[in-house]
Amino acid sequence: MNRDMNAINIFEKFEKFSEHWTPKIIGELNGQQVKLARLKDSFVWHSHENEDELFLVFKGTLIMEFRDKVEKVREGEMIIVPRGVEHNPRTENGEEVWVLLFEPADTRHTGEVEHEKTVHDQQWI
Amino acid sequence: MNRDMNAINIFEKFEKFSEHWTPKIIGELNGQQVKLARLKDSFVWHSHENEDELFLVFKGTLIMEFRDKVEKVREGEMIIVPRGVEHNPRTENGEEVWVLLFEPADTRHTGEVEHEKTVHDQQWI
Repeated sequence: MNRDMNAINIFEKFEKFSEHWTPKIIGELNGQQVKLARLKDSFVWHSHENEDELFLVFKGTLIMEFRDKVEKVREGEMIIVPRGVEHNPRTENGEEVWVLLFEPADTRHTGEVEHEKTVHDQQWI
Repeated sequence: MNRDMNAINIFEKFEKFSEHWTPKIIGELNGQQVKLARLKDSFVWHSHENEDELFLVFKGTLIMEFRDKVEKVREGEMIIVPRGVEHNPRTENGEEVWVLLFEPADTRHTGEVEHEKTVHDQQWI
């Protein structure tokens, strides 16, 4: 983990990349990582067997589909997806959505699903 | 932990309490808790033996004093304080600062220090 104890500007970090569905790591603590992701359109249905996952929205509206409901998560809102719960994050009308993720350091963002969108080596920015 | 998978509006949660230096729990995942705190003036020098701690600022400017430097953490910025590092969070000029905290569920906010500001039973809001 970074032990430099500097303030990290989150919007500046978002400006450092442009790819969608490709989480970038900005911090690590207690075996958990803080990541940023830009989302657009649809991802893939998946779940995480052993990891709960937090999404905190910095821009736009995240649509979180569950098998039994759909939840809108707006700017300044967060949602926690417990382990084992199938979910499909997406955006509407081509909107780009910026989210901060909080999850264990070894979490694969597509969960148990191997998908063309799976990123195996997530990078620090 | 809450398994209701609802969007949580962070500013609305901040409006639910007014005490300073009294973290309130708004979420739990992977043995970690998400807390909100309103800070004003000075706290107390302390460290956490086994817990790293994240501060994400939602309003105002947090002044994080370390023994060898002072870091300003502004709105939209975060800082991670590694375990074992002495720190003293405070605010300037009587400003009230709103922060989101991320730390292990059993973290005492004054670390190893027992202080009149120590809150033993942190509450969910």
